[in-house]
Amino acid sequence: MKRGLFITAEGTDGSGKTTQIKLLESYLKDRGFEVVVTREPGGTKIGEKIRSIILDPDNTKMTYITEMMLYVSARAQLVGELIRPSLEQGKVVICDRFVDSSYVYQGFGRNINIELIEKVNSIALDGIMPDVTLFFDVDPNIALSRRIRSTGADRIEQETMDFHRKVYEGYKKLVSKYPNRIKIIDSNRSIEEIFLDVKENIDKILERCL
Amino acid sequence: MKRGLFITAEGTDGSGKTTQIKLLESYLKDRGFEVVVTREPGGTKIGEKIRSIILDPDNTKMTYITEMMLYVSARAQLVGELIRPSLEQGKVVICDRFVDSSYVYQGFGRNINIELIEKVNSIALDGIMPDVTLFFDVDPNIALSRRIRSTGADRIEQETMDFHRKVYEGYKKLVSKYPNRIKIIDSNRSIEEIFLDVKENIDKILERCL
Repeated sequence: MKRGLFITAEGTDGSGKTTQIKLLESYLKDRGFEVVVTREPGGTKIGEKIRSIILDPDNTKMTYITEMMLYVSARAQLVGELIRPSLEQGKVVICDRFVDSSYVYQGFGRNINIELIEKVNSIALDGIMPDVTLFFDVDPNIALSRRIRSTGADRIEQETMDFHRKVYEGYKKLVSKYPNRIKIIDSNRSIEEIFLDVKENIDKILERCL
Repeated sequence: MKRGLFITAEGTDGSGKTTQIKLLESYLKDRGFEVVVTREPGGTKIGEKIRSIILDPDNTKMTYITEMMLYVSARAQLVGELIRPSLEQGKVVICDRFVDSSYVYQGFGRNINIELIEKVNSIALDGIMPDVTLFFDVDPNIALSRRIRSTGADRIEQETMDFHRKVYEGYKKLVSKYPNRIKIIDSNRSIEEIFLDVKENIDKILERCL
């Protein structure tokens, strides 16, 4: 690999993506790759400070435009400080959420114009896009029951079921818009079954890239 | 006044604008106006949290795009939460720095494309622009000596003299671009002399608006 590989994981909260990222990280490290795992919003010292503002349940007055801009701020920092340099060093970067989350949460969830979101994000992305995106597709009701089991919901997780449903529908639309980049992983299954699917998808891409 | 009056103060650090804002606030209150004084970045609970990230001298790795986006995030919150509602209530809003600071600090100081800055800011501004902007014009060397006297310089104040000179030149260019909106206040004078000039400019605008 000359330029590294950039994998992103997307899905609603409770879709199991974080668990799958950990399994994928081990798998790729065992195969000898240098792997960098990061997350959005956050992933850098500055980005994690921005994350804490975005997710703080006390920040009830945050406007939707402020929220979008804060996600973009954290993304710009992550791309500039971590993702671009890691890819240039030939590493595999796995990011828990990336620009697709802005399209679905801000676009479909908050009703901000998608072209406007694209325009602002293109500045932060600076030409960097995922080679492959795994969309962990889970029924919104199952995702809800998984979220209920975890404690301390953040400002976004505390949103209404209607919001989370719009986000889910947004993901579905995004998948049909970018069928080559985004792979659907049926996440209404056991962790083991889901991971077999993840591995199969990534193995195919590695074959193509190596 | 049906729609309030929006005054912004601009200038390099050490130009004396904060002192003048306080004097102007008292003057306008004495004349019976409801006055809201605020500042950028910050001015709201969320904005002040963003401010502390922007100005923290520890955040040495912040990319210029992240910095620009954080200023825009704070601005979007300030416009949505404070400036627009206050103007709608017919108040006078005085803001210590506003969008012009982005043009000169990010555009001239950091060399980010001005059109790009305008594009991103127009989203945050949502149609709100100052009715009048007072540019406190002080010789960069005088500004430097005033800054040296104050302690605890933030991340931006710690920038090189070359940076502050570019910012100053940027202001000069901006003034010639928007001569109707931006009024030059010669700030190489005593506080009293400067304030006479401020008062004269604001009185003229009040006559026009009332």
